[in-house]
Amino acid sequence: MRLATLKRGGRDGTLVAVSDDGARVAPVAGYATLQAALDDWDAAQDALANAARAAQSGEAVSPQDFAAPLPRAWQWLDGSAFANHAKLMETAFNMPPIETDLPLMYQGMSHQFIAPTDDVPFPREADGIDFEGEFGVITGDVPMGCCAADALDHVRFVVLINDWSLRAIAPVEMKTGFGWVQAKPACSVAPFAVTPDVLGDAWRDGRVCLPLTVEVDGEWFGHPNGAAMAYGFHELIAHAARSRSLPAGTIIGSGTVSNAEHETVGSTCLSERRAIEMIAHGAPKTSFLPFGSRVTMRAGEGDSPFGVIDQRVAAG
Amino acid sequence: MRLATLKRGGRDGTLVAVSDDGARVAPVAGYATLQAALDDWDAAQDALANAARAAQSGEAVSPQDFAAPLPRAWQWLDGSAFANHAKLMETAFNMPPIETDLPLMYQGMSHQFIAPTDDVPFPREADGIDFEGEFGVITGDVPMGCCAADALDHVRFVVLINDWSLRAIAPVEMKTGFGWVQAKPACSVAPFAVTPDVLGDAWRDGRVCLPLTVEVDGEWFGHPNGAAMAYGFHELIAHAARSRSLPAGTIIGSGTVSNAEHETVGSTCLSERRAIEMIAHGAPKTSFLPFGSRVTMRAGEGDSPFGVIDQRVAAG
Repeated sequence: MRLATLKRGGRDGTLVAVSDDGARVAPVAGYATLQAALDDWDAAQDALANAARAAQSGEAVSPQDFAAPLPRAWQWLDGSAFANHAKLMETAFNMPPIETDLPLMYQGMSHQFIAPTDDVPFPREADGIDFEGEFGVITGDVPMGCCAADALDHVRFVVLINDWSLRAIAPVEMKTGFGWVQAKPACSVAPFAVTPDVLGDAWRDGRVCLPLTVEVDGEWFGHPNGAAMAYGFHELIAHAARSRSLPAGTIIGSGTVSNAEHETVGSTCLSERRAIEMIAHGAPKTSFLPFGSRVTMRAGEGDSPFGVIDQRVAAG
Repeated sequence: MRLATLKRGGRDGTLVAVSDDGARVAPVAGYATLQAALDDWDAAQDALANAARAAQSGEAVSPQDFAAPLPRAWQWLDGSAFANHAKLMETAFNMPPIETDLPLMYQGMSHQFIAPTDDVPFPREADGIDFEGEFGVITGDVPMGCCAADALDHVRFVVLINDWSLRAIAPVEMKTGFGWVQAKPACSVAPFAVTPDVLGDAWRDGRVCLPLTVEVDGEWFGHPNGAAMAYGFHELIAHAARSRSLPAGTIIGSGTVSNAEHETVGSTCLSERRAIEMIAHGAPKTSFLPFGSRVTMRAGEGDSPFGVIDQRVAAG
């Protein structure tokens, strides 16, 4: 099942089921928003299944009609689960490895997720505008203390995320130990939230085993595979739920997708490519994004199951 | 004006205005929840004023009827604005000062704020259960880039918060640079959200110039004054809004209230008292909280304008 949110309606948009070709939609009887369906998951199943059938011959829509699946969420916790990314950053910046044997995770802003084709406003280019291509999951209600073995049962949807980052601010905030506020403004999300069964064999061991392809201004930038997570999403959920319950609609991110074979598969953020350049040449060659840059993200070899993020960076 | 939220009703409770003695309430016509009133602030003023008058002879309620003013919020950003607290922690733990000339702030979990008389569940005593007495503000909509000079106009309410913290986990998470997830579970909030005018002269330069009194198991623990913030709430709001807009209902915290005169006024968290003991005696003497401990917080010399937080710590 693939669900999406149209921009029409209130602040949380209007929930729809999406046809297999991603071009047609149908509303979900009794559930105006994705959050409402998540809050009442078991009871919503019949209405969702009916809508999924109706969507095949439903209303034709265009990519610009879609909001983020959850235009706002009660919680966004972003991991950093790709060991290759951490290693490259530590090598390039001559930093000691982060001392922890637990998953890395920060609490991010969740009151706004940007629609997949909307412009993305930033205050200034000098902040070092960067993208991060990530996979994420949307959970149901997760009780405090949920173990990793039970956590996969709480995954309702898989999503594709661009975690926009401001690199001139990030290391300053990181050094305080308090995590990121200014360096992590609102994320963008691809239009379709898909149930794990849609991914078939590509959903394995709590990982999205698909390439995540990034283009910048129409040029290939990278297509590393989500399979390389050091921790699966079930382990990230258990980490998050150690001392809190997670409400339905919690979004958990993988961190920027990164593979050891970065010479052939590239990266999903500028910062990592710059780190690779620093290691190879002593200095970065790639610049951060100027206003007007176009960034697209999709997943898989053929049609992206999550649809496409296709946006421009704008002066905010 | 003092507003509160009764537990009755849906997940976000029921908005009420509160009488001057804090014992009577009246509903607000057209606004079922505090978030709804915040989202429609200017238009809600007449209904709020009418409810405030009606509350003086309204329905009698007991402290147990109150939820947190916002039982969940779209954003919770907690500062650490008391320089004395930072200095004590650095001295006790022999840490270098945090390198920043900006306010310290982290993004905290906002999907749950615990009612002021409810038990507070934690997974285990060994995590080092601690409280932090803080003042906070609830904002209206704040545009990205809002400057400190304009920020005070966006303060809708002032609140009193207990920012529960797990001290065995906090330094581990802090060292990663990613901030806190497990170490910062849900906060508790005193029942009454008050408009700044209620505080009279005690609301000065974006600071709550009142003592915040903490008792543990009925014993005085501290009553430092909120006036000593190194940054006022207007500066914290501007810091938060540097690269994002803040939605109505954003809660911004002061960090644990702390004064240089800690020998006479005490502290508002165990961790700080332990740091003082470490500096004086080489080792802490005060333990973190066992299950069953009672923690109360109030503000001011007489009746607390925010009402009282009075809770027990429980096995979760």
